[in-house]
Amino acid sequence: MRLTKFYLPVMKETPSEAQIASHRLMLRAGMMRQEGAGIYAWLPLGFRVLKKIEQIVREEQDRAGAVEMLMPTIQQADLWRESGRYDAYGKEMLRIEDRGGREMLFGPTNEEMITEIVRAGMRSYKDLPKLLYHIQWKFRDEVRPRFGVMCGREFLMKDAYSFDFDDESGRRSYNKMFAAYLRTFERMGLKAIPMRAETGPIGGDLSHEFIILADTGESAVFCDKRLIEMPVPQKDTDFDGDLQSIVDQFTAHYAATDEMHDEAEFEKTVEEENRIAARGIEVGHIFFFGTKYSKPMKAMVAGSDGKDVPIQMGSYGVGVSRLVGGLIEAFHDDDGCKWPMAVTPFHAGLVNLKAGDAETDEACEKIYRELEAAGVEVLYDDTPARPGEKFARMDLIGLPYQIVIGPRGVKSGNAELKRRSDGEREDIALDAVASHVSALVRDALVYD
Amino acid sequence: MRLTKFYLPVMKETPSEAQIASHRLMLRAGMMRQEGAGIYAWLPLGFRVLKKIEQIVREEQDRAGAVEMLMPTIQQADLWRESGRYDAYGKEMLRIEDRGGREMLFGPTNEEMITEIVRAGMRSYKDLPKLLYHIQWKFRDEVRPRFGVMCGREFLMKDAYSFDFDDESGRRSYNKMFAAYLRTFERMGLKAIPMRAETGPIGGDLSHEFIILADTGESAVFCDKRLIEMPVPQKDTDFDGDLQSIVDQFTAHYAATDEMHDEAEFEKTVEEENRIAARGIEVGHIFFFGTKYSKPMKAMVAGSDGKDVPIQMGSYGVGVSRLVGGLIEAFHDDDGCKWPMAVTPFHAGLVNLKAGDAETDEACEKIYRELEAAGVEVLYDDTPARPGEKFARMDLIGLPYQIVIGPRGVKSGNAELKRRSDGEREDIALDAVASHVSALVRDALVYD
Repeated sequence: MRLTKFYLPVMKETPSEAQIASHRLMLRAGMMRQEGAGIYAWLPLGFRVLKKIEQIVREEQDRAGAVEMLMPTIQQADLWRESGRYDAYGKEMLRIEDRGGREMLFGPTNEEMITEIVRAGMRSYKDLPKLLYHIQWKFRDEVRPRFGVMCGREFLMKDAYSFDFDDESGRRSYNKMFAAYLRTFERMGLKAIPMRAETGPIGGDLSHEFIILADTGESAVFCDKRLIEMPVPQKDTDFDGDLQSIVDQFTAHYAATDEMHDEAEFEKTVEEENRIAARGIEVGHIFFFGTKYSKPMKAMVAGSDGKDVPIQMGSYGVGVSRLVGGLIEAFHDDDGCKWPMAVTPFHAGLVNLKAGDAETDEACEKIYRELEAAGVEVLYDDTPARPGEKFARMDLIGLPYQIVIGPRGVKSGNAELKRRSDGEREDIALDAVASHVSALVRDALVYD
Repeated sequence: MRLTKFYLPVMKETPSEAQIASHRLMLRAGMMRQEGAGIYAWLPLGFRVLKKIEQIVREEQDRAGAVEMLMPTIQQADLWRESGRYDAYGKEMLRIEDRGGREMLFGPTNEEMITEIVRAGMRSYKDLPKLLYHIQWKFRDEVRPRFGVMCGREFLMKDAYSFDFDDESGRRSYNKMFAAYLRTFERMGLKAIPMRAETGPIGGDLSHEFIILADTGESAVFCDKRLIEMPVPQKDTDFDGDLQSIVDQFTAHYAATDEMHDEAEFEKTVEEENRIAARGIEVGHIFFFGTKYSKPMKAMVAGSDGKDVPIQMGSYGVGVSRLVGGLIEAFHDDDGCKWPMAVTPFHAGLVNLKAGDAETDEACEKIYRELEAAGVEVLYDDTPARPGEKFARMDLIGLPYQIVIGPRGVKSGNAELKRRSDGEREDIALDAVASHVSALVRDALVYD
């Protein structure tokens, strides 16, 4: 992608309304623009990160056996009256009246709708188990939206729903999502720790929040250090097999959010050197709530004895748009973002230090073409801006590698390659740049 | 994908509310479910078609040099007051009040928002030209939603916006989208004819609708037959080059919707044997409206003389969700859908005629694994349903190829391969099925 064709409105000033790093950097790096309280437009740079996160979430849902679909954003109020949540949900629900006076709402979550869908299409225990998910925009009318995408009103969520005949099978579905979540966040470069958590308005008695540690996290968390080093399930994991040992392993050590924290138990079960008391960001939340929705909404299947029983259900959320902010909180410095390769908007930046100079242009164009042919996503700064501005902009947007080419380098036959994560620089022969960088990118994208 | 894991609630009865084939078939084939007037959930089968259409649209937008981003669904009323459209838009706009009493709306289109975005980030003629697009759910509160996704309320649209310094450059951007649209619909197997059209509430004086011919189309259309046979631009088209000759070629012959139709001109310019008077479905609409939004909303850039001028703009829509219906109108028979390879939910179906029979299961599993390994998207009917039910279901969902394997075939070493488009059947040796089918799929997906 040529920067002259891209739209990257970076800001020099730090926006005064932004209190945390991710909010500041997303605005400054031209990743998004506020279009209302807690409502953002995803500009091209931010959009690319959002899509990569979404795709990792999708791949791991598919691997776990979940099937993708898509529910609409607008729901009918009557559906929520069936579950009893229409009145219970309060002011966070954005209520809407259409031209015919019908009561509707912008969905904050989809338990009711998916229950309505499956009750129409599932008849027998033979239709189960099933796992369905969608990745859709939700709206929660937060009283005080803040911290950019971390606590916005319109947000992108992956929500999966499991349908099983009995409790035991339901717990197997829960375990699939538990294991899939460990993999999902790991692939983004994040260590998310499953913690016992309150179930809140979703309901049920089995629930885990997946929390990444960050100083700017919204809640205090307490856990055993050994959880952080625990290897996550590999990609050849059999999701139709027994995953209980994985869940047992990750729940064997203490981990709880402040709502569920028990200081006495923490001190009793975790040795002092292993105790972590930190702040955390919730990036996923899974629930097994049995018949909470299927019973009042009459989503029933017949057992082998012909008798109808309500379906056992769970729901499983990942905050896709929130993860963009969470990743920046985890990966940034004073100069800007430092994207892990799996979620970076582009793999590399190519900086032409003297656009308009025939020889430099030619060298850059050649490497640009070679990188694109090799499948490297490259943002080519072909603008006439000054070198200092170009360097600052590249550091701000935080691509993993910067390839810098100027007239002097062209004469000596070299480009400078800078690694954003630690600032390390090396000279590379112009002829070798594309193969060298594409190997670095390829190696960084391998995962187990 | 195993059908036992998929969610495919097909219906035997024809839903009474569905008046046209696409609406009927989308409900019967378990592609979608109505969740309110003109509001649908996309079940897994329909979702896969939607995603394929979206991806073709995306690839052709990218090829034309447009850059993807994503604007939110909820917009502020004040933005629409700036352009004067808040009051003008009428009851089709879904107006919303949030908990703080702020006036908002569910966006029916995004001219205002994109104008607000670029006026904040573009300063100089050097920042132009730019082409931005997004693929996002919109809402139009139709007084009488009907025909399923063809005239729904919540719908998925690709809308692109062009930004240029002067009229001439603006027309070049318009031409890019014109050419991209020809390619986009062609890749889906559709022949879309650009027709002169009214600009309506979007505005401007240069506009074309892209129309596919179908008996159930919403409007009468009139065109010259030669337009239908005209080859579309190839994939190596230089979108930065001069595309005027392509536009000239496709606008040299008569083509108009009923609103713009001039019978006298039609008869004068088109020989009788070339006159087509038919019904059509609008699948795309492009507009060049100059400064209609940039002027009142003050989206200005400085020219080389330092003087500010309003940006020249156009907007370019494709009805992504509507195309699912349009494709079915174009490709179906009494038994069900007949998907073109480029947009089919799966490339092939694999029918196990006797699930539970060890030898048949084994033969099916082997071919299923081979097809998946070869990159063929296959829906494996591994359910215990009777053969007649399986055949009817496969015809209904309309995958291009059906591979049928039963105990008798296993004994003789053959599978039956049925082509859905014309019902042709042939026997294929079990060992050769995967390579044969994957070659058929690959060949059908090649495009210029």
